[in-house]
Amino acid sequence: MMDRLLRINMSAEGGPMVSTVPVGVYAGLGGRALTSAVISSEVPPLAHPLGEDNKLVIAPGMLSGSVAAMSGRISVGCKSPLTGGIKEANAGGQPSQVLARLGYAALILEGKPKDGDLYKIFINKDGVKITPDNSLRMLGNYDLVEKMKGEYGDKIACISIGPAGEMKMSAASIACTDIEVRPTRHAARGGVGAVMGSKGVKVIVLDDTGMASRAPKDPEKFKAANKAFVEGLKKHSVTGEGLPTYGTNVLANVINEAGGYPTHNFLWGRFPGVSLISGETQAETEIARGGVATHGCHRGCTIRCSGIYMDKEGHYLTKQPEYETVWSHGANCGIDDLDAIAMMDRLDDDFGLDTIEMGATIGVAMEAGLARFGDAQAAINLMKEVGKGSPLGRILGNGAAVTGKVFGVERVPVVKGQALPAYDPRAIQGMGVTYATSTMGADHTAGYAVTANVLKVGGYVDPLKPEGQIELSRNLQIATAAIDSTGMCLFIAFAILDQPETFQALLDLLGSFYGNPMTGDDVTALGKKVLTMERDFNERAGFTNKQDRLPEFFKKEKLPPHDTTFQVADADLDKVYNW
Amino acid sequence: MMDRLLRINMSAEGGPMVSTVPVGVYAGLGGRALTSAVISSEVPPLAHPLGEDNKLVIAPGMLSGSVAAMSGRISVGCKSPLTGGIKEANAGGQPSQVLARLGYAALILEGKPKDGDLYKIFINKDGVKITPDNSLRMLGNYDLVEKMKGEYGDKIACISIGPAGEMKMSAASIACTDIEVRPTRHAARGGVGAVMGSKGVKVIVLDDTGMASRAPKDPEKFKAANKAFVEGLKKHSVTGEGLPTYGTNVLANVINEAGGYPTHNFLWGRFPGVSLISGETQAETEIARGGVATHGCHRGCTIRCSGIYMDKEGHYLTKQPEYETVWSHGANCGIDDLDAIAMMDRLDDDFGLDTIEMGATIGVAMEAGLARFGDAQAAINLMKEVGKGSPLGRILGNGAAVTGKVFGVERVPVVKGQALPAYDPRAIQGMGVTYATSTMGADHTAGYAVTANVLKVGGYVDPLKPEGQIELSRNLQIATAAIDSTGMCLFIAFAILDQPETFQALLDLLGSFYGNPMTGDDVTALGKKVLTMERDFNERAGFTNKQDRLPEFFKKEKLPPHDTTFQVADADLDKVYNW
Repeated sequence: MMDRLLRINMSAEGGPMVSTVPVGVYAGLGGRALTSAVISSEVPPLAHPLGEDNKLVIAPGMLSGSVAAMSGRISVGCKSPLTGGIKEANAGGQPSQVLARLGYAALILEGKPKDGDLYKIFINKDGVKITPDNSLRMLGNYDLVEKMKGEYGDKIACISIGPAGEMKMSAASIACTDIEVRPTRHAARGGVGAVMGSKGVKVIVLDDTGMASRAPKDPEKFKAANKAFVEGLKKHSVTGEGLPTYGTNVLANVINEAGGYPTHNFLWGRFPGVSLISGETQAETEIARGGVATHGCHRGCTIRCSGIYMDKEGHYLTKQPEYETVWSHGANCGIDDLDAIAMMDRLDDDFGLDTIEMGATIGVAMEAGLARFGDAQAAINLMKEVGKGSPLGRILGNGAAVTGKVFGVERVPVVKGQALPAYDPRAIQGMGVTYATSTMGADHTAGYAVTANVLKVGGYVDPLKPEGQIELSRNLQIATAAIDSTGMCLFIAFAILDQPETFQALLDLLGSFYGNPMTGDDVTALGKKVLTMERDFNERAGFTNKQDRLPEFFKKEKLPPHDTTFQVADADLDKVYNW
Repeated sequence: MMDRLLRINMSAEGGPMVSTVPVGVYAGLGGRALTSAVISSEVPPLAHPLGEDNKLVIAPGMLSGSVAAMSGRISVGCKSPLTGGIKEANAGGQPSQVLARLGYAALILEGKPKDGDLYKIFINKDGVKITPDNSLRMLGNYDLVEKMKGEYGDKIACISIGPAGEMKMSAASIACTDIEVRPTRHAARGGVGAVMGSKGVKVIVLDDTGMASRAPKDPEKFKAANKAFVEGLKKHSVTGEGLPTYGTNVLANVINEAGGYPTHNFLWGRFPGVSLISGETQAETEIARGGVATHGCHRGCTIRCSGIYMDKEGHYLTKQPEYETVWSHGANCGIDDLDAIAMMDRLDDDFGLDTIEMGATIGVAMEAGLARFGDAQAAINLMKEVGKGSPLGRILGNGAAVTGKVFGVERVPVVKGQALPAYDPRAIQGMGVTYATSTMGADHTAGYAVTANVLKVGGYVDPLKPEGQIELSRNLQIATAAIDSTGMCLFIAFAILDQPETFQALLDLLGSFYGNPMTGDDVTALGKKVLTMERDFNERAGFTNKQDRLPEFFKKEKLPPHDTTFQVADADLDKVYNW
């Protein structure tokens, strides 16, 4: 059963205090629905994000810990130091399954230690042990995880922060270990790592030895639904072919062709060097060097969009960098060197940083004249400053908005303080609606309009025109908020949007697991409920429709090659939450 | 006549374009009323503060350029890079009188140069000349003004930016020259210097040779009113005695005694070293070294609260540092060395920086561990980083909020991103109301509740209790918005609050000058009109009542010696603008 909350009060006199309490009013919620419910009802909206009143909620999804395929996402929620609003960032890797099997609906870090100690938390079937361990200070995630394996064995899953989180940088991520127990899967966006750092927690080590998978209420129906679900994923071209073969970076050529591949800090929509950094080139490089091009990030993944990237000498460098990472450190900075990009991905993972935010930030730094566009070594050097925590590194580690402000740059691609990802809103207007109106700040995963705008999944909406984008983004944002609550990887969306029988299989998985039949309307209602809570928190934190806007340069500067600006009217953006 | 607007379009093809246009819809407005009217109606509220759509409005007051005593304040308005809201910062010195005599109700810088050139603007009776002059790049205000005197003679008044403005720092000020043609009077708050920098304008040189004082409609009545007005100022103890003898820093002992002198980044309300940096010590030091302790900042000043501060060798170092400057660089950083404080004042004036923001920022940097509290040399070194524009200097030059964010500090004393000045809101609760609710961000001049809370001017309201503070702050904010529009120095407020006949003299000055009798109700109506415009702009820029709040530590941490927290309820703060 996943029926308990593990609350850890870091403020307690004499050291952190653990209380295991029934899930209570949060019963039936998981993932994003749970993290947003806790933050929305327990954190004062005007609290300082790094203060004792903020909370860090780490929640497996509704199906995590079961044998359902693709159910390994874990949600991390808090008030964001980057946006000042509510935040949910989710990650793959092993921790979701392990935490769920240990019986916890969520782990909630509360308060703030009065001493300056840094803590590690170990959780297994016998309970929870919290130990101050200042020897972990400023360790990179890779060394940290190695040290934990030395102490606790290699059957563990870790949730941790690198130096960036300890330095409370607004671009700091929380790392989750993958199947190989490497810290490669990150709840990356919105500075969640800084909040973990402010709580004085370096690492949470999980061991589910002796625990079983979570059992469905109706095992027969659940098994059948899972089979149909996996079959559905296999037969869809995106999840059955494109993603496994080339990974998410299969999109580089596609988005570049669509003219929406932001290049040189969102100056152009196509990158001349795209073929050198595309998913095809990346997969070929991986295979040639003895790496892997088709690999899952957690047990139970059947899409296997990840991979393993070796350096020129054939040694492990990093997991296969994602499309958004290759874009942010690549095209956005004018860099066409895949090895340099992979090195920055490694540094991001090791320091504990959001790759999207960091690539966007380096783009802004290049615009400010701190380095030339295209200079890979200069970009790597900037990354290293972040790891060192030099003044320059502190600036960069706090993201694109702070960097733009500090260096007086006007063209800063952020919404609500969070950097725009790898899809230019002038060429893919539906994404612009999501960026502008998401409760999370600019976030492609919040409502991935690339589906209908470019991939022709779930219908087609002309990406260059404003018509239809509001409805498209709204429906995707609702569906996503629900999917982010199930623990399912968002990539199931391609198949469930196109194949009614696969969507039905998902409903059957949920229904048979909980013993309550679930309908499409239930999913929609869940998504709306999550978004409503989040939006309400943001309003109480001081957000208005004025924050639901793209930076003005997207409305003024035309993006080649289509020479379009963002055309969706402000008044229409204000209708996204009218349902 | 002051009936023209001088608009300079810095975006024009082939270089800046000048147009002199009738004052039109803005007729009758001056100072803050005029700057806020222009910004409110002409600048898109969501424009980037450093972008081409922002405007920099420089406006003498309604009585500036006349022979009315104390009428030498000049208002600078824009959308603020520091707060993101509307901004009016005003300064003394000579430019207000000179610009008014040249016949301009306001100078408005618009657009943004397409080339990277830096410009100087010369204005005299014959017109306007704009010249690119890249030899001025990164000059400090002192060297710059010397250079201008070499080129244009010493009968000029200058409005200029230092390196901070060129680097578009959010703490950058705009300097105005004083009677000695030194760049010592600053429109300091809110980053107005960064906006001037973004317009590519380094200096505006004004020469009113050949121009006469602005003539009143009823010269006899005006003369009599001016006489009564000056007499009123002379007989009030604050403007007739305290301010002339010791300058504004006469407050150091007073506010320290009241327990509201913020020390060590707002940790305590009293500073053990206050006697070493008080106004009394300062005046004594000035006189002993051959400086001046009683001096006006502009011709026509009869209060003469300023002075001239010499170094130990008897050479000019800076003008007499103000109370807020001595506090910010002194007590707030634990520094009790008057010479070090004067050196930082000099550096602020030379680099073009807001002394309040910089002292508060160094306090936050000390809290972050970048220097020890009390280490004067370390503080000076931090200031020099700002002048150099090193990464650390760029952080600090962008103010306390950015510095707090970059270094992960929780205790950051700002409202709407602007640093709190020298009065702790827990010991002087009326100031807390002004800080929280002012359209300007935390600003003591916006509604100086120290009057009734501490000085017992204009009545008495217990400073430690919430009762009566809303009404006090509201009335002061209304009156101040009006006074800031007249060109009058705010220090006339002491006498007009306590002496009905002095208030009547001010009304008669305005009435006889414009030929329209003016009543107290008219003044109130003007103040409300200004605040309403400003508040409306801020709302359209995305501000809500959630930004009308003090940082949470003022509500949580008790301030010694009174051990009080800020007690005014949020719901009451929301009533300030209900009139």
